[in-house]
Amino acid sequence: MKTLMELLASERLYLLKTRISDLLESDPDRMERMVVDTDDLVADFSKNSVDVKTLDLLLELAKEKNVEAFRDAMFAGEKINQSEDRAVLHTALRSNSTEPLFIDDVDVRAHIASVKAKMQGFSNDYRSGKLVGYNGKPLTTIVHMGIGGSDLGPRLVFDALEPVVEGYGQTHFVANIDGAELTSVLNKCNLEETLFIVASKSFSTQETLENAKRCKAWVAKAFGTEDAWGKHSVAITARADLAIADGYEEQNIFPFGDYVGGRFSVWSAIGLVLACAYGYDAFEEFLEGASRADKHFQEMPLEHNIPVLSGLITFWNRSMMGWHSLAALPYCYPLRKLADWLQQLEMESNGKAVTREGETSSLQTSPIYFGQQGTLGQHAFYQLLHQGTEIVPCDFIGVAKPYDDPEHHRMLMANMVAQSRALMEGRSLPKVMELNPGKERKLLHQKVFPGNRPSTTYVLPELSSKTVGYLLATFEHRCFVLGALWGLNSFDQWGVELGKEMTKQILAGEDDLAHNSTLDKSSRMLSKYLL
Amino acid sequence: MKTLMELLASERLYLLKTRISDLLESDPDRMERMVVDTDDLVADFSKNSVDVKTLDLLLELAKEKNVEAFRDAMFAGEKINQSEDRAVLHTALRSNSTEPLFIDDVDVRAHIASVKAKMQGFSNDYRSGKLVGYNGKPLTTIVHMGIGGSDLGPRLVFDALEPVVEGYGQTHFVANIDGAELTSVLNKCNLEETLFIVASKSFSTQETLENAKRCKAWVAKAFGTEDAWGKHSVAITARADLAIADGYEEQNIFPFGDYVGGRFSVWSAIGLVLACAYGYDAFEEFLEGASRADKHFQEMPLEHNIPVLSGLITFWNRSMMGWHSLAALPYCYPLRKLADWLQQLEMESNGKAVTREGETSSLQTSPIYFGQQGTLGQHAFYQLLHQGTEIVPCDFIGVAKPYDDPEHHRMLMANMVAQSRALMEGRSLPKVMELNPGKERKLLHQKVFPGNRPSTTYVLPELSSKTVGYLLATFEHRCFVLGALWGLNSFDQWGVELGKEMTKQILAGEDDLAHNSTLDKSSRMLSKYLL
Repeated sequence: MKTLMELLASERLYLLKTRISDLLESDPDRMERMVVDTDDLVADFSKNSVDVKTLDLLLELAKEKNVEAFRDAMFAGEKINQSEDRAVLHTALRSNSTEPLFIDDVDVRAHIASVKAKMQGFSNDYRSGKLVGYNGKPLTTIVHMGIGGSDLGPRLVFDALEPVVEGYGQTHFVANIDGAELTSVLNKCNLEETLFIVASKSFSTQETLENAKRCKAWVAKAFGTEDAWGKHSVAITARADLAIADGYEEQNIFPFGDYVGGRFSVWSAIGLVLACAYGYDAFEEFLEGASRADKHFQEMPLEHNIPVLSGLITFWNRSMMGWHSLAALPYCYPLRKLADWLQQLEMESNGKAVTREGETSSLQTSPIYFGQQGTLGQHAFYQLLHQGTEIVPCDFIGVAKPYDDPEHHRMLMANMVAQSRALMEGRSLPKVMELNPGKERKLLHQKVFPGNRPSTTYVLPELSSKTVGYLLATFEHRCFVLGALWGLNSFDQWGVELGKEMTKQILAGEDDLAHNSTLDKSSRMLSKYLL
Repeated sequence: MKTLMELLASERLYLLKTRISDLLESDPDRMERMVVDTDDLVADFSKNSVDVKTLDLLLELAKEKNVEAFRDAMFAGEKINQSEDRAVLHTALRSNSTEPLFIDDVDVRAHIASVKAKMQGFSNDYRSGKLVGYNGKPLTTIVHMGIGGSDLGPRLVFDALEPVVEGYGQTHFVANIDGAELTSVLNKCNLEETLFIVASKSFSTQETLENAKRCKAWVAKAFGTEDAWGKHSVAITARADLAIADGYEEQNIFPFGDYVGGRFSVWSAIGLVLACAYGYDAFEEFLEGASRADKHFQEMPLEHNIPVLSGLITFWNRSMMGWHSLAALPYCYPLRKLADWLQQLEMESNGKAVTREGETSSLQTSPIYFGQQGTLGQHAFYQLLHQGTEIVPCDFIGVAKPYDDPEHHRMLMANMVAQSRALMEGRSLPKVMELNPGKERKLLHQKVFPGNRPSTTYVLPELSSKTVGYLLATFEHRCFVLGALWGLNSFDQWGVELGKEMTKQILAGEDDLAHNSTLDKSSRMLSKYLL
């Protein structure tokens, strides 16, 4: 009897020769099986190189890989991040369950509730002008400093809500150690009214701490006292001990648990900037949207479960079909940071070659995620999507209800539908010949579109705190499903350590880098120019 | 006798088994052969999976593919964009040659000189407050509207020069048809002082023209007359006839020739926004930097020619080694849009499967370009670069001289060198075991870095108009070399047409889309939600 992987391999050979458009036309059940239509999100998987039989096999694979049990273990707070001996409980941040949930004898729910209450009070004070700086003036400007998980989520959501939720004050983000970013932001700030949020899970992130140091010196100089910093800064971290050691007072620290991975932390105190800018209610709605996605992921049968189907099809495209990348294409200017956020979510979680059990993976794991807001990408890299030598599966994301000019919105959505259709349909040589009578052969061939290029389309009913929360949580769970299928620990990131260590070594040994024989010749030469 | 491709295939098998670090240590000539050190740019190719023999074979390939003759044909104005019957003369925009150059009986040089003079006068007037709006107030704010090639170049360079050239007035960019972008920008503008630049090569770009229409209506309403638009707008286009038909007066039109591809157009009148924001002299320096790169590309022997070597190694990585993507990693906040710009440059130019001669390519062509400013990417997707199942060649770009806080700059550059070194060196299992005594095997394996991951590092001596021009022109020429090696026409983009046509069809047939039987079932269903 054939194994599941062998059966999938047969499907692959069949589907490589089959047009998606034929599958769409010939199978009357396809739309029902391959579209999941909920009040929160519509996911249309029908333009993928997958038929119903493939889907059944993939669903069997999900069972074989214990996706459901593994999911339940995550929600229950089991320490599924084995290599770091941690639970994975970003879902608890948005849960409205009141049942206690203990991790290492601490009730996670009680801790989360207390931090949320503190966030609510703080953001209310900020928005009502009660929060004042060292000179007694209300704080009206926030500089959020964080990088990676402490940056991408808040930045994405901040942009996403701009057209639909009334903002308060000015909000800036600084991530890079490159001083030009901080300088550019500080030039826009009135220090007397500025609050610095220092966001670092480990409270040892080089970029964030160095930027905070520079701000602290700037504040001390401007006010003539180091005491001023305490009135103009808060720290967000899972290591309150380190923040306290660095001089932050406990009341100015917003903690979160180590069971929240950095790339899953926008739901935690890391989201304080969102509560301040858009109000605590909007932040709660954002959490509620995510909670609804959690419920969907937990309760829907696998065959109608959006993150499960999305994960299975991404797995299929990467590990069975062998397509190396995935384009994330939100047709929504407010969601313009989505591809950046997904890059971290997926490539940091599943960009790994060694399984939880320490074995070398037998399959290709995370694809390269890249992307751009529609329609910008159309005028940049879609040439390759349509006519390049390799297939790039695409994720389109659209919004049904206009949030700005309805006529422009209609054009935007028409573009999105047209692109998924054009990728699938293509244009054959005979058709090109018909449209270009009398043209020479070599030009005709250049105008052919092979088509049969797969895509998935996600439709949000509207743009709101809730739907953005729903969408991000859905992608988080897809990432989880992929990790489970590949047998990876999606929650650690050992691959970032070596670069950090080597940076420290280079900075420590800097005096004679250009002649340092422990460095390779290239790095020595570069150090001569750069350090 | 073996063909060149066969010899390269043998090299591939050898190099797949060879450590880059061993090549670096063992070959005393490697640095001399694989580093090109000029006053404008240092390019270090030595951390690639290429040895001197590979390089010799690749240089032979460049000769076999007539890269030099093809390059000379481009500079001479021959119509190398055959499928559109056009010359490719963005280089003429930055040339200081005074010899006439005729294309279709028009002296390109004279035309370019006259447009530049007009740009100079206009930008001087803007910066000196002489350019006034309908109410007689000086214009101090620019909204540059363009998409793709009319957007990415100006946006990249605008950001790049912010820390090093004093800016004038406020500058905003709008690209998307999504009304939220325009709304967000208009909220920041005082209409009486705002100049709209409408930039579209074809003057038929849906997004740009629709946005311009919305601005025009807004201006008419605010001033109570349609006449006001003429005092608040200019058009930049290769189709002045269409701009005139749309109501623009000739004096308000800045033209460029159809021999300038959209993605190569930042050097043309499309750069007007840069001249206005940073002064015409800065724009001229930007052109001068590019001109120096042109000279290097034209005059340096192939084996010391940066764009040629860069193109050959990118070709090697993609088409011989089979690596699918390329990460562009500028360790420079001001160059943060570089990956977006490169995506268009490379993926639109060489994301093609049919050669100039109309044959299906026998090789994989353009890789997927993606990237992020360092150090941001380190906290996002570098996990995959270090430990993922597939190899992603990296292009690092650094700047020798600090343009902001020197200490932060030093850390930034140390990170960059450390990353290229870590990717190459990796960390073996024995080393991991030594560093983690007593840990269990499965964890140890997860901490292994395979290493041997290739990268190239580019070092700019400083950040300036000139060096940014030099860098962008260098990448343009790399793109040219790649197109020549693959036998592609890098200057057309037939792959964007089908999506445009289908958008029009969808918008035209919108009334009954949900029941339109000429649409596939999926697009019909999506239209029901979205249109």
